[in-house]
Amino acid sequence: MSELIKSDLEIIKRGCHELLVEKELESKLIFGKPLRVKAGFDPTAPDLHLGHTVLLNKLRQLQDMGHQILFLIGDFTGMIGDPTGKNTTRPPLTREQVAENAISYTDQVFKILRSEKTEVVFNSAWMDKLSAADLIKLAATHTVARMLERDDFNKRYRNNQAIAIHEFLYPLVQGYDSVELKADLELGGTDQKFNLLMGRELQKVFGQSQQCILTMPLLEGLDGVNKMSKSMNNYVGIAEAPKEIFGKLMSVSDQLMWRYLELLSFESLQTIQTWRDEVDTGRNPRDIKVKLAQEIVGRFHGKQAAVNALSDFEARFKFGGLPDQIPEKHIQISESEIPLVQVLKQTGLTESTSEALRMIEQGAVKIDHQRIEDKLLKMRRGEQVVIQIGKRKFARISIE
Amino acid sequence: MSELIKSDLEIIKRGCHELLVEKELESKLIFGKPLRVKAGFDPTAPDLHLGHTVLLNKLRQLQDMGHQILFLIGDFTGMIGDPTGKNTTRPPLTREQVAENAISYTDQVFKILRSEKTEVVFNSAWMDKLSAADLIKLAATHTVARMLERDDFNKRYRNNQAIAIHEFLYPLVQGYDSVELKADLELGGTDQKFNLLMGRELQKVFGQSQQCILTMPLLEGLDGVNKMSKSMNNYVGIAEAPKEIFGKLMSVSDQLMWRYLELLSFESLQTIQTWRDEVDTGRNPRDIKVKLAQEIVGRFHGKQAAVNALSDFEARFKFGGLPDQIPEKHIQISESEIPLVQVLKQTGLTESTSEALRMIEQGAVKIDHQRIEDKLLKMRRGEQVVIQIGKRKFARISIE
Repeated sequence: MSELIKSDLEIIKRGCHELLVEKELESKLIFGKPLRVKAGFDPTAPDLHLGHTVLLNKLRQLQDMGHQILFLIGDFTGMIGDPTGKNTTRPPLTREQVAENAISYTDQVFKILRSEKTEVVFNSAWMDKLSAADLIKLAATHTVARMLERDDFNKRYRNNQAIAIHEFLYPLVQGYDSVELKADLELGGTDQKFNLLMGRELQKVFGQSQQCILTMPLLEGLDGVNKMSKSMNNYVGIAEAPKEIFGKLMSVSDQLMWRYLELLSFESLQTIQTWRDEVDTGRNPRDIKVKLAQEIVGRFHGKQAAVNALSDFEARFKFGGLPDQIPEKHIQISESEIPLVQVLKQTGLTESTSEALRMIEQGAVKIDHQRIEDKLLKMRRGEQVVIQIGKRKFARISIE
Repeated sequence: MSELIKSDLEIIKRGCHELLVEKELESKLIFGKPLRVKAGFDPTAPDLHLGHTVLLNKLRQLQDMGHQILFLIGDFTGMIGDPTGKNTTRPPLTREQVAENAISYTDQVFKILRSEKTEVVFNSAWMDKLSAADLIKLAATHTVARMLERDDFNKRYRNNQAIAIHEFLYPLVQGYDSVELKADLELGGTDQKFNLLMGRELQKVFGQSQQCILTMPLLEGLDGVNKMSKSMNNYVGIAEAPKEIFGKLMSVSDQLMWRYLELLSFESLQTIQTWRDEVDTGRNPRDIKVKLAQEIVGRFHGKQAAVNALSDFEARFKFGGLPDQIPEKHIQISESEIPLVQVLKQTGLTESTSEALRMIEQGAVKIDHQRIEDKLLKMRRGEQVVIQIGKRKFARISIE
């Protein structure tokens, strides 16, 4: 294997959860033809956050190696909607809505992907022509038992939760897309593994060479625990203002910072390793966080915005830049010390000491811009600090 | 309910296994419009035996009441064949083969049904036009769990035998046929109940009034035990020679005769009851068997053939009419008696005494045309008889 292919493989595998089958992908790379790389997306109106971009970044890396990206919008099933009528939040989309959403989609993803090297395809192009008889033949290629192996089907079946029969057909449709696209490689989230394998299996049935599959992990949100999502409010939207993106990224833990660098940054693994070494030998991790935050702001808002966001942030940080109006609170204590949680409660920053404890646990409490991790921290008489909880609550506090 | 409808209902229910839902059928009959009666048939080349005619007879009865018979040939799935490729005995049929088979089918069934009152329909007429999207919507109407309720699916799933996913789609196709046909009533074998119910359920989904379903039992073969089938060689083919049909029907047990009268005869229930009473008070059941045999021969070969078959049979019976070449066997005994099973073995009519016992148990042994039921029967020195085993083995025997 040449050095180039070795390095390409390393880039492809960076941050990925699973690559199947590595040997096959190697052969494809050695063969030298640009790979046809498939990734499927919902045709619903997207509002992307960084979690979504993990996969897009990988596509971009593949694109930069010269491979062909097939950006597949699954409009066929989108236009069917949920035929059981149970899921009222997923009404069938019209052809016009699909087209509109596709434009909104590409507007967003082309901040990451190179539009001139991306082929946007709609599976209705071939699925609309498929007859019931064709679908029956597709369905004959797999067994009920095989379908029930899929985690979510299995759980629902065991819990006596309804699985409508058409749900067994959708993975087949998705797999058949790979046949139509003659995909060499398909990308998806870890939750998509079963469906990606369908593509492999159906390509075999149709006598094609089988696609490899590459699953990408689900990105943790700002809390470092839960998957990034709107509903958890732990996300960074790619359309958010530069200042917001910058501030949110500066707020993540050092550990999460490395994870984000792996999955979100376009910096090389070598560079990141150098930074790690530097931090290990004393460099302030905040410096690295700034680099990450600048890169991401730059990606979505341009270089100038990144520069501005940094100077804005530095102004706030270095000169104690804080909201214009910070309430002042004075706390009289009889002892020489008072637990921080008491301070938070007495100043009304939290409702109770237990909420205060929770906030500290969640890393939401900062004193003079320093995140506090010690739940038992005590403050001493004479201290004057700015305490911040989350993004919006501030108080200038004197212990007297 | 008028007397007429009451009597019609009685005829409809004659010999049936289950009628769902009787009250609904009553309403449909009271409403007075001719019912659209659906019955589905395989598009494979048929070679009908009396077992198949149980359902056809019922259709004929309905026809005679003025209802519309929709003789549905399921050619859509027939032309798909078995897409798993596992069942090599069911290759996909071509459109030409379907047409040929349909002619062969109707040639046979119009010996029972009135062709001018039968509409022969092919489900490819609507199924060929169905798109994959339409089929997905159909599939969404039912759950995997519901499908696994079907006896055979359930057994196979529990025994880890493969069920291909398209097999879940076929009952939906069959049910959808009822929607297209706007069927009021569907007939099928008892093994079809699940599929017939699909028709009811899908009609509801499509806002139609629901069909009733009528299942007919599987006819026992000549042995009175197993289902009539070619492979068990216990059948009467409707294309067999008059003499064969007549002889086979004369060979059935008295009990099976009543069953055949219920399911195969067009004689009224009253007439059959009268015969029952007569037999109960001493009439020879053979007389009734003759009537049954004549009716069936007449149905498939005409009146004259029935008359001839009877006189031929009577000649054989009354004047000892027997095959031209009957081997003669002489058995010397030292006692005054010998068990029949010994005779059968010594003359080579059976291989062993245990086979001889089995033959008697199965009712396959006759002495001078009299079926033997007593396994311990002994023959005495001086007897000269014709022993018959099954249809073809004869011997003229002298005990000396």
